[in-house]
Amino acid sequence: MIDRLIRKIKEKNNPTVVGLDPRLSMIPNFMKEASYERYGKTPKAVAEMFYSFNKEIIDAVWDIVPAVKPQIAMYEQYGHEGIKAYIDTVKYAKEKGLIVIGDIKRSDIASTAEAYAEGHIGRVEIEEENYDIYGTDSITLNPYLGYDSIEPYMKHCKDHDKGLFILVKTSNPNSGEIQDLEVDGEKLYERVGKLVSKWGEELVGEAGYSSIGAVVGATHPQQAERIRKIMPRTYFLVPGYGAQGGKAEDLKGYFNEDGLGAIINSSRGIIAAYKKEEYNSEFSEKDFGKAARQAAIDMREDLNRVVAL
Amino acid sequence: MIDRLIRKIKEKNNPTVVGLDPRLSMIPNFMKEASYERYGKTPKAVAEMFYSFNKEIIDAVWDIVPAVKPQIAMYEQYGHEGIKAYIDTVKYAKEKGLIVIGDIKRSDIASTAEAYAEGHIGRVEIEEENYDIYGTDSITLNPYLGYDSIEPYMKHCKDHDKGLFILVKTSNPNSGEIQDLEVDGEKLYERVGKLVSKWGEELVGEAGYSSIGAVVGATHPQQAERIRKIMPRTYFLVPGYGAQGGKAEDLKGYFNEDGLGAIINSSRGIIAAYKKEEYNSEFSEKDFGKAARQAAIDMREDLNRVVAL
Repeated sequence: MIDRLIRKIKEKNNPTVVGLDPRLSMIPNFMKEASYERYGKTPKAVAEMFYSFNKEIIDAVWDIVPAVKPQIAMYEQYGHEGIKAYIDTVKYAKEKGLIVIGDIKRSDIASTAEAYAEGHIGRVEIEEENYDIYGTDSITLNPYLGYDSIEPYMKHCKDHDKGLFILVKTSNPNSGEIQDLEVDGEKLYERVGKLVSKWGEELVGEAGYSSIGAVVGATHPQQAERIRKIMPRTYFLVPGYGAQGGKAEDLKGYFNEDGLGAIINSSRGIIAAYKKEEYNSEFSEKDFGKAARQAAIDMREDLNRVVAL
Repeated sequence: MIDRLIRKIKEKNNPTVVGLDPRLSMIPNFMKEASYERYGKTPKAVAEMFYSFNKEIIDAVWDIVPAVKPQIAMYEQYGHEGIKAYIDTVKYAKEKGLIVIGDIKRSDIASTAEAYAEGHIGRVEIEEENYDIYGTDSITLNPYLGYDSIEPYMKHCKDHDKGLFILVKTSNPNSGEIQDLEVDGEKLYERVGKLVSKWGEELVGEAGYSSIGAVVGATHPQQAERIRKIMPRTYFLVPGYGAQGGKAEDLKGYFNEDGLGAIINSSRGIIAAYKKEEYNSEFSEKDFGKAARQAAIDMREDLNRVVAL
C-alpha cells in the first residue's frame, strides 16, 4: 500500500489527504432541499446528500490530491443508510484513482479484530463467494489492546496490498492524559511508536517505508521531531492541520529529509471551504466543489513552502 | 442506566450478559439455506440469518438473563446490511425488556466522538426531527485518547439514562503489552482505572454504582482483585468467561461483598451451545435456542455458586 501512496504523493507533488467528514451543517441548502424532498427529513436523505456532496468534492480534487480519508463516525451515526453512503464514497474515490484511508480507529481482541479486518481491508467469505465489503486501502486502528489486536490485519495487508495507521500521539487537547505518561524514562506514545515501528518491519516497501503507519497529530511539533527519529521508516498520518490549529511551519519535523514520511489531513478546511471568509466572496454555495479545489491548491502551496519532494 | 441494570440483575438473580456475536459457522444449516434461497450467498442473506438467529436466542433467554451485548464487528463486516441486522437486534432485545450493551469499542477526538455518541446512545437531529438510531443502553469505549474523547458521551448518559463501559484491562493474551506498563509505580491499567472511576463520579446512581463502568477481562483474577479495590463503585463488564478460559471460581474477586459490581459475558458458550459436546446429544440443530437457554441456566448456577446476590 505504502508504495502506491508514495507514488501518488510524488505524482501530485502533494502530501495531503482530504478528510471526507461531512456534517449536515456543511451541506449546501440546494442539496439538502433536494434530498429532503425525495426522502423527507430522514437518515436516508442525509446519506444521499453526503454521497452527492462527497462525489462533487472528489470530482473537484481527484487530480491534485493523492488520497482521501472518510471518517466513518460521520456516516455511522446515521445508521445503515449512513454506512451505505460511506461504502459508496469509498468506491467512487477508488474509481477516481485515489488512495482511500478509512478513519475507523477500531480496537478489539483477535477473533473480533479478524471480523473488522476481513470487512474493511480483506475479503468476507460467504460459502464459496468472496466480498470486498468496504474496499478501503488503509484504515486507522487503536493500539491499547496490544499486538494480538493488530496481528489479524497483517495478513490482509500482505495478501491485498493494504495498510494501517495506528494511533501513536493524537491531536486532541487531552491526548497527553494517557499517551504522555512516563514508562521507564520515556513517554507512553514513544513506547507505542517503537512497537508500531517493530510491527511494521515485515511490511517495508520499495521506497523504504512500511505499510504500517502511525497517526501523529499536527498539534505536537516538538514531540513529532522526536517520534520522527524513533520511527524513521514509519509513515505518519497527520490530522489537525488548519481547523485544529496546526500550521505548515510546524509540520517540517513530521517529514524526513527525502520530503516523504508524512501525509497531512485537512477536512473541513477543504470540504467546507465555501463557508470560510477567505473563499466565500469568490465562491457561492453552488460552487462548493470549486472552493474545495482552491483550498486544496492553497494547502498544497502552503506545504510546498516547507517540504520539497 | 446502572440502576436499571442492577434491578434486572437482582430480578433474574443472574449477573450474566449474553454476547450476541453470531458468525456464519454458528448458524444452523436450515436457517442458512432458507436465507441463501431468498437472497443468494450475499451479505443481505447473512444479515437476515443473523437477525433470525438472534431473535430465537433472545426469545429463549430473555426471562433468565438481564442483558445482551451484540458485538458490532460481527455485523459491520457485512456492510450496511449487517449494520441493519445489528440495529434490528438491539430493537428486538429492548422490546423484550433486556438491557443492551453495544460492544463498539470506539475511540476518537471530541467532534467525532460527538457523532458516535449521538448515534449510539443519544439522538441524531435532522432539522426538527430527532432519531434514536442505534438505541443501545450502554456502549464500550477505548480510553487511549483521554477524557475529551469520553466527555461527549457524558451528556447523553445523563440526558437519556445511558451508560459506558471503558476498556481498562482486556481479556486477550497480549493485553499486557501496553496496559501492564509501569507508570509511576503502578500499572497503566490501574492508572486508567482510577481515571475511569473519577470520570464516573458524576454519574453514580441510587445503588451506589456509576453508569460509567469498566471492561476488565475474566482472564486476570489477581489483577481484578486489585482493580476492584481501586474502583469499588465502578461496575465491571467481564468478557472471557468460558471460551477464553475464565472460570466461575476465578470470578469471585470481580464482585463486591454486596454480590454486585460485575456482569459476566458469555458469547459462543451460550449462543452456539448446540454445537458443544455438553449439549449436542440433547439438542439438535433446530433446538439451538433451547440449548442456549440450558447453557444460560447452567452459567447462572455456576456463577451463583461463587456470588450471592
